[in-house]
Amino acid sequence: MVPAPPPAAPGEPAPPLRRRGERMRAAVLAATVGVLAEHGLAGTTVGAVARAAGVHETSLYRRWRTRENLILDALSEQADAALPVPDTGRVRDDLAAYFAALARLLATAQGEALLRLSAERDETLPDRRLPYWTERLERGAVMVRRGVERGELAPDTDPALVVEALAGPLFTRALISGAPLGEAYASHLVDLVLGGALPRDRPAPETPAPE
Amino acid sequence: MVPAPPPAAPGEPAPPLRRRGERMRAAVLAATVGVLAEHGLAGTTVGAVARAAGVHETSLYRRWRTRENLILDALSEQADAALPVPDTGRVRDDLAAYFAALARLLATAQGEALLRLSAERDETLPDRRLPYWTERLERGAVMVRRGVERGELAPDTDPALVVEALAGPLFTRALISGAPLGEAYASHLVDLVLGGALPRDRPAPETPAPE
Repeated sequence: MVPAPPPAAPGEPAPPLRRRGERMRAAVLAATVGVLAEHGLAGTTVGAVARAAGVHETSLYRRWRTRENLILDALSEQADAALPVPDTGRVRDDLAAYFAALARLLATAQGEALLRLSAERDETLPDRRLPYWTERLERGAVMVRRGVERGELAPDTDPALVVEALAGPLFTRALISGAPLGEAYASHLVDLVLGGALPRDRPAPETPAPE
Repeated sequence: MVPAPPPAAPGEPAPPLRRRGERMRAAVLAATVGVLAEHGLAGTTVGAVARAAGVHETSLYRRWRTRENLILDALSEQADAALPVPDTGRVRDDLAAYFAALARLLATAQGEALLRLSAERDETLPDRRLPYWTERLERGAVMVRRGVERGELAPDTDPALVVEALAGPLFTRALISGAPLGEAYASHLVDLVLGGALPRDRPAPETPAPE
C-alpha cells in the first residue's frame, strides 16, 4: 500500500504540482485514503483531498466528477491490495484465506466505508455499482473455477453463486445486522457452502482428497 | 395486509381521532405504509403520516420517538406478514418457498426501503438493528431446525449460519450490487447451501430421501 502523504497544515495549502496521469492518480488516491482514515467518510471532501495531495480541486473534479467517485476509486484500489487472490492448490484453503481477509477488511472503518458507499444511492453511483461488483465477483470466482478444474468441486458448480453465498453473509453482518465479523465465521461459511447442510457420508470438506 | 386509509387532502387535515393502544398503532402503521408507497422513503415524514392516520403528530413522537423507528416498525410488520414460515415437511421446499418470498419482497420498493433503513446508521437505530435481525434470523432458523430433527440435515448443522448464507446474497443483490433478484436465484442458493459445492455421490438435494 502506498502511504498517504501528511495532510497540509490548515491555512497553508500545498503548492499545486503539475503531476500527470498515473502518478497524479496514485498520489490523489493515497491522499484520499489518508483523509478518510483521519476525518471519516463525512469529512472527506474534494477540497480536503486536493489540499492533502497538493493538486487543484478543479483537477479532481475534471477526473472524478464527484466526491463519491473519488472515494470509491480510492477504496477499491485499497481493497484490491488488501484482498490478493490466493492460489494454494486447494480450493478450501484459497476460499478460507480470501474470505477471512474480506472479514478483516470489513471490520475496519475503511472497509465498512467502501461497502456503505456501494450501498448508497445517488445519481452518479448506480452506473458503477453493478460493473464494480461484477468485477469483484469475477476476481473471487477464479478460485472456485480452479477448484472445479482440479476436480475438487462438482463440475456443474456456479462460481459466481459460490462467491455470492460467501460474501453476502459477511456484507450483511457489516452493513445490516451489526453482528461480529471474525475469521472463524468466514471459515464456517466456507465449510457450509462447500460441504452443504445435508447429512454427509464422505470426508469432511476440510480434507478434500488430493487428485 | 391492512389497507392504508387515503391521505387527507392538502390543507384539510383529518380531525384527530382519540384511538388508543393497538387500534391506534395498527392505523398508524397502515398509514405509514400507504404514505411510503405514495411518497417514498424521503417523503415519509411524521407529519404526513399523522395527517394520513388522522392523529396528532405529538402522539406519534410520544410513541415512536423518531421517524426512523416509526418506518421500521411499519415495514417490519408488513415484512412479517409477507414472509410466513412454511411447514411442508421437507426442509428444501420450506427454504425455497421462504427465500423466494424474501426475494419477491426485496424486489419491491417497500422491501428495499426496509433493508435500507436497517443499513442506515443513526443514533436511534443501532440499538434496534441487532435485536431486530436476530429475531428475523430466528424465525427462519425454525425451518432448518425442523429439517435437522427429521434427519434431513446433518445433526451438527448451524441453523443461523444456514439462514445467513441464504439471506445474505439476497440482501447483497438488493442493497449493494443491484443484480436482479428472482425466485430462480433463491432456489439455486438453497440447492447450493443444502447440497454444497463438493462433488456429490448421492441423490441431488431436490429429492432428499423421505424418512
